[in-house]
Amino acid sequence: MTHPASSSLTGLSVQADGSRTVHRALPEEVAVAIVFNGSTQAVMMASPTDLADFAHGFALSEGVITDLSQIENFELVDHPNGLEARFWLAEDRAEAIAARRRLMAGPVGCGLCGIDSLEQADRDLPQVGGAGLRFSYADIAGATDALRNHQPLHDLTHATHAAGFLQPGKGIILAREDVGRHNALDKVIGALALAGIDPASGAFVMTSRLSIELVQKTAVTRAPVLIAVSAPTAYALRAAKAAGITLVAFARGGGFDIYSHPKRIIPEVPNVP
Amino acid sequence: MTHPASSSLTGLSVQADGSRTVHRALPEEVAVAIVFNGSTQAVMMASPTDLADFAHGFALSEGVITDLSQIENFELVDHPNGLEARFWLAEDRAEAIAARRRLMAGPVGCGLCGIDSLEQADRDLPQVGGAGLRFSYADIAGATDALRNHQPLHDLTHATHAAGFLQPGKGIILAREDVGRHNALDKVIGALALAGIDPASGAFVMTSRLSIELVQKTAVTRAPVLIAVSAPTAYALRAAKAAGITLVAFARGGGFDIYSHPKRIIPEVPNVP
Repeated sequence: MTHPASSSLTGLSVQADGSRTVHRALPEEVAVAIVFNGSTQAVMMASPTDLADFAHGFALSEGVITDLSQIENFELVDHPNGLEARFWLAEDRAEAIAARRRLMAGPVGCGLCGIDSLEQADRDLPQVGGAGLRFSYADIAGATDALRNHQPLHDLTHATHAAGFLQPGKGIILAREDVGRHNALDKVIGALALAGIDPASGAFVMTSRLSIELVQKTAVTRAPVLIAVSAPTAYALRAAKAAGITLVAFARGGGFDIYSHPKRIIPEVPNVP
Repeated sequence: MTHPASSSLTGLSVQADGSRTVHRALPEEVAVAIVFNGSTQAVMMASPTDLADFAHGFALSEGVITDLSQIENFELVDHPNGLEARFWLAEDRAEAIAARRRLMAGPVGCGLCGIDSLEQADRDLPQVGGAGLRFSYADIAGATDALRNHQPLHDLTHATHAAGFLQPGKGIILAREDVGRHNALDKVIGALALAGIDPASGAFVMTSRLSIELVQKTAVTRAPVLIAVSAPTAYALRAAKAAGITLVAFARGGGFDIYSHPKRIIPEVPNVP
């Protein structure tokens, strides 16, 4: 069974000067169950593209695995109601699976009381790497425009997010799309791991706003720079500062804001401190 | 403890013609644990505004309660890491809590195998009401512009979503904001219930795209019309068609698309069938 990334639709467009039949392409979304050692960790609605990347990225960014070598077996299995990403992990990951299960924000519902759940949701984040990484003004200023060239599903549907990986002087070397921005970032994280590329060698670039979960995923995978076309939440910025992440926001139209750890961006424009 | 809706920030804006210090307001987000009868159902990151509306709306739209009379007690409790929305429900809701816990998409992680999890994520939706409800062209064409007048947090931060409730001839009678679009809709659903307004009397209006979860929440609360500034996913549209929901997309600039059940919109423009 193949899952198309989009479906065509005939609708009625009503405008002030009349109405007409329109043909549009809508993005598909499918339920993806991520299953570790026979037990479901999460069911996510995702664009049905690059799902092996997605599953591997999710396992890494949520801290269930720290390295692909901990995966003993992986398969994608089709079901009538969606897809199952089935991991068999080394026995010593059992505690990480259980710990992460308790830690996830969202519909956790495993019986913790309220105060314990809130403590678990506030993840301790590691310090990111990339101490010697330097981006030029041009690298950053062109990042979101460059990402636009890697968004075929968005070109078709005008309704999906993208995440990309930017390296100094090389532009966007890899990008993935999804109806969900968290999923798009997980797909990039998985694709980097499967290609053997260290996230500490570049920056994540997002078409979206930055919520706390995107900063958490960035920190856990040790990527040192996070660039977004829109704003972070205040909590996301505090977390980025604490983890040592360079956070760039409102990156569009050739300009951008820097909100934390500016040392990784070389000033090439006049009067940058 | 009060939780501010936004925080001010000093950053560096880098543009092609130079750089300067900028002052921005960023939206806050806090962890909210939703707890039924002493056990956490979900931990959601949300804007810390209208949280009683949010919690009540979540309980309704997720099907844990079908009526506010099933709530025996409710309180919002502050904790160092977030807020707890604590419900005590009538004893006969225990099965609904457990059933919904199994049904939620997201990081469920309660030990179901993959195929069972996928079956549970595909919610059966009821048919919506509002058979006699009729909106004019002007009602719909002005909906998202009208919603813009109810977005003070977005005016400040340029980074939050909103949901509104539109009634024929009355415009947006109620609106709520949140960093998350699902939360914004839950806040409107809760506010309607607490005000004693039947969701079957109007339309939900969203500043966002429409994922399957937004259609599910709309159907569960029996609201017959869902209007969005952007596109639905194909799955969201199939669910809307099946539940009898009139789905309106790309509602902006005085025009809109109709993708399902057009009968609730009176044609006033030339050549609408």
